[in-house]
Amino acid sequence: MGSQDDTSLQSIRYHRGSLHLLDQRKLPLDTIYLEIRDAAEGWDAIREMVVRGAPAIAIAAALSLAVEASKLEGFSGTPEDAASFLKKKLEYLVSSRPTAVNLSDAATKLTEIVMNSAATATEANQVFQAYIEAAEIMLEDDVASNKAIGSYGSSFIQNQKKDLKKLSVLTHCNTGSLATAGYGTALGVIRALHADGVLESAYCTETRPFNQGSRLTAFELVHEKIPATLIADSAAAALMKTGRVHAVVVGADRVAANGDTANKIGTYSLALSAKHHGVLFYVAAPLTSVDLSLSSGDEIVIEERSPKELLNARGGLGEQVAASGISVWNPAFDVTPANLISGIITERGVITKNGDDMFDIKGFVHKTMTMSIN
Amino acid sequence: MGSQDDTSLQSIRYHRGSLHLLDQRKLPLDTIYLEIRDAAEGWDAIREMVVRGAPAIAIAAALSLAVEASKLEGFSGTPEDAASFLKKKLEYLVSSRPTAVNLSDAATKLTEIVMNSAATATEANQVFQAYIEAAEIMLEDDVASNKAIGSYGSSFIQNQKKDLKKLSVLTHCNTGSLATAGYGTALGVIRALHADGVLESAYCTETRPFNQGSRLTAFELVHEKIPATLIADSAAAALMKTGRVHAVVVGADRVAANGDTANKIGTYSLALSAKHHGVLFYVAAPLTSVDLSLSSGDEIVIEERSPKELLNARGGLGEQVAASGISVWNPAFDVTPANLISGIITERGVITKNGDDMFDIKGFVHKTMTMSIN
Repeated sequence: MGSQDDTSLQSIRYHRGSLHLLDQRKLPLDTIYLEIRDAAEGWDAIREMVVRGAPAIAIAAALSLAVEASKLEGFSGTPEDAASFLKKKLEYLVSSRPTAVNLSDAATKLTEIVMNSAATATEANQVFQAYIEAAEIMLEDDVASNKAIGSYGSSFIQNQKKDLKKLSVLTHCNTGSLATAGYGTALGVIRALHADGVLESAYCTETRPFNQGSRLTAFELVHEKIPATLIADSAAAALMKTGRVHAVVVGADRVAANGDTANKIGTYSLALSAKHHGVLFYVAAPLTSVDLSLSSGDEIVIEERSPKELLNARGGLGEQVAASGISVWNPAFDVTPANLISGIITERGVITKNGDDMFDIKGFVHKTMTMSIN
Repeated sequence: MGSQDDTSLQSIRYHRGSLHLLDQRKLPLDTIYLEIRDAAEGWDAIREMVVRGAPAIAIAAALSLAVEASKLEGFSGTPEDAASFLKKKLEYLVSSRPTAVNLSDAATKLTEIVMNSAATATEANQVFQAYIEAAEIMLEDDVASNKAIGSYGSSFIQNQKKDLKKLSVLTHCNTGSLATAGYGTALGVIRALHADGVLESAYCTETRPFNQGSRLTAFELVHEKIPATLIADSAAAALMKTGRVHAVVVGADRVAANGDTANKIGTYSLALSAKHHGVLFYVAAPLTSVDLSLSSGDEIVIEERSPKELLNARGGLGEQVAASGISVWNPAFDVTPANLISGIITERGVITKNGDDMFDIKGFVHKTMTMSIN
C-alpha cells in the first residue's frame, strides 16, 4: 500500500497488518504515534479523540479491523461466521462516535462487501481478505480524492487570478492530513497551490473554541514548510480589508443540494467578509459530503457543543478562563448560503454557478458519475 | 465623594485619602482589591495591568497621586514647589503606559490646573487641595458621562425598536465598570436597557485573543444579574442570522471626524455581519474619544500586539496552544467605516447621520459644547 504521500504529515500510518495513529490530543507539543492492533484499540482511539476529522475517523476504524482480520488465520468458522464476526465488529466501531456520518457510511459499505464475499467464498479467510482489501481501497480512495480536489482547486483558482504571479489563501479549521487519510481537502488546495509555486502565503484562523486552526492547521503548515500566518478568527475581516487575501478555501461537513454548506462555526462570518471585500470564497469537499436529500441548508440541524469549550482554556481541556455562571451558546457549525459561495471544489472538478446564479449539484454529480479519479 | 454607584462592580474604590483597585489580572477567579497609597504604587498597578481600560487607567493614575497629595501636610516648600512636585509625579505616571492617550490627556489637564493654582496660592497645601479636587472631579465626570451615554443609548435604541417589548444586544470586548471609573460605555447602554426593563438578553463575545469578553464582560454581567450569554467571536454572524440580536453596541478607542471608528479587533467583522442582517450597529463613547484632527479612519495607526496572545492560552499568560514556528498577525484594533455604523452614542446625545448619510461630528460637538451632563 504505497498510496500515502510519505513527505506529508500522516494522521494514519498503515501497511498490511500494522496501523499507527498520530495522537492528535498531544499536538502541537508532541508527535506521538500509537499502535492500534485491533478494533477494540481502534474504538478507544476514536472515542478518546486520538484521531478526529470525519474521513480520518472512518478510515482509522476500518483499518483497525483490517489489522485484526489480518491476524485471524486460525479462525475456525465458515465464511458466514467470518462475515458475521466482521459485521459485529463494524457495528461496535460505529458506536465509538455514533453521530459521525462518514463512519456509519463506511461501515455500511464494508458490511455489504463482506456479505457479498461470504455468499461466494469457500473459506473464512477469503472473507477476511476481501474485507482487508476493501478497507485499504478506502484509504487509497480518500487520498486520491483529496489530491484530485487539490489539483482541480489549484488550477481553477490560478485561472481566476491569472493577473497575479502569487496569491494568498485564508482557511478555517483543520481540513488537512490530520483530518483525512492524507493530503486534505481545503488544505489540500493550499498544498497544491504551494506545490505549483504560486502560493504567496496561507493564513489560518485559530478556529475557536477548539483551536483546530492554531493547534492542527498551523502545525501542518509549519511541518510542510508552507509560508503561513495565524490570525484570530475575528481578525479575518481586517485582513481581507488590507487586500492581502485573494481567496478563502474552507472544508464542509455537509453540502445541501442547492450548495448551502454547513461547516465549522465561523465559516459564515468569513463568507460575509469575503463577499464584502470581493474575495473569492470556495468550499472544498469530496462529493460524499453532498447530501442531495437536503434541498437547502435550512434542513441541516446544527449540533451544540459543551459550554466548557469556551469557559476553559484550550477548548475546554485547560484551566478556567471565563466568568463562572455565564450562559454559553456554542454551536459546532454554521450554514453558509450558496449565494456567498464562488464555487465548490470536488474530486471530479469545480462546481460553478449556472446562468441563474445557482449551483446544479445534482446535474454535476450525474454528469461526472462515471469519471475515474484514480 | 458619593458619585460611584455602590451596587455595580467597581474597578476603582476611592474616598479622599484612600484608593483601592480591583486586581483585574485575578478575574474572574478572584475578586481582590489592592490598596494604592501613592503614585509609585499607582504606576506599578497600571504597568502590571492590575487596572486596564483607557478611562480607568487615567483616573487610577490621577487618584493614586491624589492619595499621596492628601498626606503631604508637612510639605515645606512654596506653592511653586508643590506644583513642580505634582507635575513630575504626573510625568512619571504617564510613563507607566506611554501610548495611553487618556492618561497623557489627563496628566496635561491636571498639570495645567496645578500650575494655575500655584500662580494664586499662598501656601503649598492649597495647590495639593486643588489637585485632589480636580482628580476627584475627573472620577465623578467619567461616571456621569457614562451614565449619560447609557441613558441616551437606551432611550434611542428603544425608540428605534418601538415594536419590540424586549430586545437583545450584542457587545464586544469590555467597556464596563472595569474599563471605566464606573457604569461603562457600551456596557453602560446595556445596563441602562436592563434598568429600563426592556433587555431580553445581552450577548458578549469572548474577544480573542485577550478574552476581555469572557473574563471581564461576562464577569460584570453575572455580577449585575443581567441575563447574558457568551459566544465565540466567530459565532456572532450565525447568532444574528437567527434573528435573536436587535442591536450591536461597542465601545471605541478612537473616532475620526467622519465617524470611522477604531475599536478592539473583531469590531469590523461584527459591523459587516450586522449590516448584512439589518441589525442596528452603535458605537458608544465619550466625546473625548473623538479626534477631529483625523479626517478618516485611514489615518488611524493600528498597534500590533505580541504573537504570544495567540500562541499561548489565556491571551498569552497560559500554556502553549498553537504550533511552534507559526507566524502570527495580531492587530489590537480594526477600523469600522462610518457607513456600517447606525449611530454614535455620546454623553451629549446620539450622533445620527444627516441627509447625505454622513456623520457631522464637528457640528454635533459645536452644537452641544455648552451642555452640562452633571
